[in-house]
Amino acid sequence: MSDSQQLAEACRDALKQDDGLIDHLGISIDSVSPGCAQVSMQIQNWMTNGHGTCHGGIIFSLADSAFAFACNSENEPNVAASVAIEYLNAAHKGERLTAKASRTTQRGRTGVYDIRIENQAGDLIALFRGKSHRLNGTILPD
Amino acid sequence: MSDSQQLAEACRDALKQDDGLIDHLGISIDSVSPGCAQVSMQIQNWMTNGHGTCHGGIIFSLADSAFAFACNSENEPNVAASVAIEYLNAAHKGERLTAKASRTTQRGRTGVYDIRIENQAGDLIALFRGKSHRLNGTILPD
Amino acid sequence: MSDSQQLAEACRDALKQDDGLIDHLGISIDSVSPGCAQVSMQIQNWMTNGHGTCHGGIIFSLADSAFAFACNSENEPNVAASVAIEYLNAAHKGERLTAKASRTTQRGRTGVYDIRIENQAGDLIALFRGKSHRLNGTILPD
Amino acid sequence: MSDSQQLAEACRDALKQDDGLIDHLGISIDSVSPGCAQVSMQIQNWMTNGHGTCHGGIIFSLADSAFAFACNSENEPNVAASVAIEYLNAAHKGERLTAKASRTTQRGRTGVYDIRIENQAGDLIALFRGKSHRLNGTILPD
Repeated sequence: MSDSQQLAEACRDALKQDDGLIDHLGISIDSVSPGCAQVSMQIQNWMTNGHGTCHGGIIFSLADSAFAFACNSENEPNVAASVAIEYLNAAHKGERLTAKASRTTQRGRTGVYDIRIENQAGDLIALFRGKSHRLNGTILPD
Repeated sequence: MSDSQQLAEACRDALKQDDGLIDHLGISIDSVSPGCAQVSMQIQNWMTNGHGTCHGGIIFSLADSAFAFACNSENEPNVAASVAIEYLNAAHKGERLTAKASRTTQRGRTGVYDIRIENQAGDLIALFRGKSHRLNGTILPD
Repeated sequence: MSDSQQLAEACRDALKQDDGLIDHLGISIDSVSPGCAQVSMQIQNWMTNGHGTCHGGIIFSLADSAFAFACNSENEPNVAASVAIEYLNAAHKGERLTAKASRTTQRGRTGVYDIRIENQAGDLIALFRGKSHRLNGTILPD
Repeated sequence: MSDSQQLAEACRDALKQDDGLIDHLGISIDSVSPGCAQVSMQIQNWMTNGHGTCHGGIIFSLADSAFAFACNSENEPNVAASVAIEYLNAAHKGERLTAKASRTTQRGRTGVYDIRIENQAGDLIALFRGKSHRLNGTILPD
């Protein structure tokens, strides 16, 4: 395993620790690599409205999780500065959603990441574009 | 109470019914009126990361809830088409957040709503701009 | 005239100097004040497509000009980091457009400005939300 | 040449006709294909501010032109509904910018297109994401 891959996995472990949301939503971290991450989640009953359609905030949260693992994969701490999300298709109770994040560009302290959210049939549910802002310090203790 | 205010409250009741997320997040619906809504929520432990900072997806979900009540306050069903959110200040465990939504414009089937999210000290946590798309039909049964 | 108003006007004069686009588009700077600006422009033939509809890039440029005067009104140089624009109504050859910019929030080096673009009949043509990034230095020489 | 490629080129010719902005900015249409387009332009003096930096509205206009050719390449008329642009690096007087547009997704009447704007050295100047809205009718006469 390359050093950069090992670092990405160590950062993932540090981020997961003491995080309340990942477990609460039942998010599985499928893979991380430098600048990239993939997570997935099954849509539970409480995540839907009266018509069984998944709330936008839940889809956003899943994508945001992929975004966080991707932009924190190189031991430099980054936070979300802004996000734009486009909803393309509805997602429903019981479906499994996957969010794939990859870095589109990094310039100074600002990164742009693109995340695709699909259901298990490969339908595109949403497109999420996040801008990250790099903080000082490191993710891992020296 | 005006007819339009009565209608807004009837729509709120219809939306709340069978909705899983509002209860799950502990969202309180403070007020609704035509084109407007205000909701609030206390940040629980599971909503935060290891540093006690509230996840962006939770802040988004709160604002999205205000957006939904505001754009569904006149018996015409609307869904979110896209959202842009800017994060300005971090929110922390135990704080109470309030999201105020108001309609900025409506043109044909497309509406633009602006939502401010503040903490109890009045600090601006995030700005959320949502575009709604109007569906056919009504929210309430005839 | 207050000191802050005098400063805003001095910054406007500095920005205008040697700027090629304002004259080229025929933009009139109607007013500036701390954090705010209003500009206007008549839609010329070359700004339109074959149907006489004004190009989005021209509407954007007008709004961007109002944004620039507003975020550079206090002698701290700011550049645009990102913009989101929503088109609501078409604008046509010969119409006069006005763009009004005001600061929605400033937090550290990041500002959020909202600009409304209207035609002379008061129809809302577009909504422009710009994020500014503050650079070091000053606009005016000491 | 395939039928779809021929159609894209016929649509390009129809769009160009009577368009004032393309000539005015000196935009060259490098290529079109179904869902894609590439255009380029040299930054002229009047497009810059007092420091010789290209205005954001000009960069936007170039990208918007690529967007228009891409989303109108299949004889279905589309207009821009909204755009988000991220500025990554400054562009300067005399540089040549290229904007490459490609369709990321189409769903019903809504399309999402991504446009990269680079200078001649391959530096990424900006990322432009446009949402298109399809109108009725055709671009070409029957």
